[in-house]
Amino acid sequence: MDYANSARASHKEHQGKLEIQSLVPLLNKEDLSLAYTPGVGTIVTDISEDKEKVYDYTLKGRTVLVVSDGSAILGLGNLGPEAALPVMEGKAVLFKRFAGIDAFPICLDTQDTEEIIKTIKNIAPVFGGINIEDISAPRCFEIEARLQKELHIPVMHDDQHGTAVVVLAGLINACSLRGLGNDARIVISGVGSAGVAITRILLSYGYTNIMCVDTKGILSSDRGDLEGEKKYIGDATNTEKKTGTLTDALTGAHIFIGVSRGNTVTKEMVMHMEKDPIIFALSNPIPEIMPELAYEAGAYIVASGRSDFPNQLNNALAFPGLFKGALKTRKQFTDELFVKAAIALASVIVPTKDAILPSVFDENIVPTISAVFEE
Amino acid sequence: MDYANSARASHKEHQGKLEIQSLVPLLNKEDLSLAYTPGVGTIVTDISEDKEKVYDYTLKGRTVLVVSDGSAILGLGNLGPEAALPVMEGKAVLFKRFAGIDAFPICLDTQDTEEIIKTIKNIAPVFGGINIEDISAPRCFEIEARLQKELHIPVMHDDQHGTAVVVLAGLINACSLRGLGNDARIVISGVGSAGVAITRILLSYGYTNIMCVDTKGILSSDRGDLEGEKKYIGDATNTEKKTGTLTDALTGAHIFIGVSRGNTVTKEMVMHMEKDPIIFALSNPIPEIMPELAYEAGAYIVASGRSDFPNQLNNALAFPGLFKGALKTRKQFTDELFVKAAIALASVIVPTKDAILPSVFDENIVPTISAVFEE
Repeated sequence: MDYANSARASHKEHQGKLEIQSLVPLLNKEDLSLAYTPGVGTIVTDISEDKEKVYDYTLKGRTVLVVSDGSAILGLGNLGPEAALPVMEGKAVLFKRFAGIDAFPICLDTQDTEEIIKTIKNIAPVFGGINIEDISAPRCFEIEARLQKELHIPVMHDDQHGTAVVVLAGLINACSLRGLGNDARIVISGVGSAGVAITRILLSYGYTNIMCVDTKGILSSDRGDLEGEKKYIGDATNTEKKTGTLTDALTGAHIFIGVSRGNTVTKEMVMHMEKDPIIFALSNPIPEIMPELAYEAGAYIVASGRSDFPNQLNNALAFPGLFKGALKTRKQFTDELFVKAAIALASVIVPTKDAILPSVFDENIVPTISAVFEE
Repeated sequence: MDYANSARASHKEHQGKLEIQSLVPLLNKEDLSLAYTPGVGTIVTDISEDKEKVYDYTLKGRTVLVVSDGSAILGLGNLGPEAALPVMEGKAVLFKRFAGIDAFPICLDTQDTEEIIKTIKNIAPVFGGINIEDISAPRCFEIEARLQKELHIPVMHDDQHGTAVVVLAGLINACSLRGLGNDARIVISGVGSAGVAITRILLSYGYTNIMCVDTKGILSSDRGDLEGEKKYIGDATNTEKKTGTLTDALTGAHIFIGVSRGNTVTKEMVMHMEKDPIIFALSNPIPEIMPELAYEAGAYIVASGRSDFPNQLNNALAFPGLFKGALKTRKQFTDELFVKAAIALASVIVPTKDAILPSVFDENIVPTISAVFEE
């Protein structure tokens, strides 16, 4: 399939992918008097007397903001707000399709952390939840933490936690198939927003043997160059304080999780891992190692971010259910809820080596994940 | 009709009045690959190489931001962003119904002029035009002027210019029926955002004999207390530098235009106007004088802002066509275009005393107004 030209045609057909529709009829003066003046005056007064009623009378309670500054668009880089818009529209399409959630895309004409926080806070009254998307590390960590603290609605950076929930769910099922426990030796390559969140969720779940690798080598508490989230990761993992390269880290490991760059893992590196390794090569569009090469090198299970191979670890498996639950209960996202959501997602199917997780079209996913918010 | 409870029921039925719908199918993996990754990557790259393509490939070119800070909601006052949301949703419903324009409501959690400007600029990449709504004077003047200057998309404060276009259109037809020319003696009561914009458009059209009245009396260049837009109005009107109250101003006048407060004009005041006066009592929901009283006092034509009397001067007669034209041509709004739009609106029907303007449901309005942008 020629994705490029088909995508161009599909995006041009309607000028984008989203439309804003009216839910009320406007056939005559009476309709106008209810939807607009004078009828709407009653609604204004009711809400001014009890702000909570904004959830009853407006779109707020069922509407999510999908917001990016265009600084880390997919794997394509810092291309600005206009170029980010088709991705955010696409995300809103997925919200509607999979969870029936209304989502509106906003792409920001600023990449200043404080200004992003201020702008999102200023437009927040309209939304029931906020999905931060494609904002580069380390700014994404502070933006998410500050908004969670300063707003009274659920806020989540999907590149972190959507990814982390799906990876943990996949790993739970892959480890079960492979017969590995919480002491499995795990190597995570890439310590950006996804790598940090994956490491955190694996630690929260109870995995005890994790090493993270960035471009300078294995992270540990001995590395003097680490700051912020990376420093936390260095301190919380690699308790034996091993040093070395990705090749060194992989030797003898059971599991590789890549959220770094394409073609950075060779067949030889996989061959030096423990027998029957699990490979999650999630760099997109080019995986750290192509699935067929990983299998040739002895991999037991291979997952990637691509739709053209089995075992696609797709964020769309998590974020619709996460926001469905958060909107319904008006709970803030927490590490504990992310772990529970991953366990719930893993439980949706009886996994096989070629289907460690359900298809995104499985209708049980959203209610199963959403239900953990109501426990 | 019990508007209050009907409006509550209607707003509760769907949680508000707007829904965000997908325009593309998502039935299988192929659909996903076009709307989201990997297909959307092509669109991202195309736009990053030529920003203009955001108009072809996204919702931007057909989508308007409806934005308020909740500081002047209808005639109800400064009630904050949550209370403003049902009005802005309603406005978006009207945009869709009358012009097929997608509009999204944003209510801001700030009333600081600079922060409002910054926030709107930061979210502007997603929109083809900006409709400012229910922001109080005098901040609305600076916000509109600055955004027009600093953004490259059409920006309009509808409480000013939508109202002004409809009032001028109504006045053109009313004067024609009454046999009055550009030297008709006009009194405008209320010099807020609507009063300023009405005065400006009447001057631009060519009316030569205008007096404006605020709570301190008739404006003139001799009034030492005027600033900003009000000072301009004082200098540009009342060339004879008359002084006095609204009662003094109305004595001998042909036309009264009220955009002030309810019940501020008495039968006696109308009886002292020139014979067969034209009364536009636009305060909402309570007019400056109730239509039946004005007729008893000898009015020739009475218009109001209410839907339950003939001659409703409704902004919905203007803004859908104005934005239709602006989005299509990507022209900034100007005083000249507003005058042309008013003349076009007046031309849509052959007026009568009880129907000086067409019904908002007249399908000729939007194309007729929109066409002036293409001249």
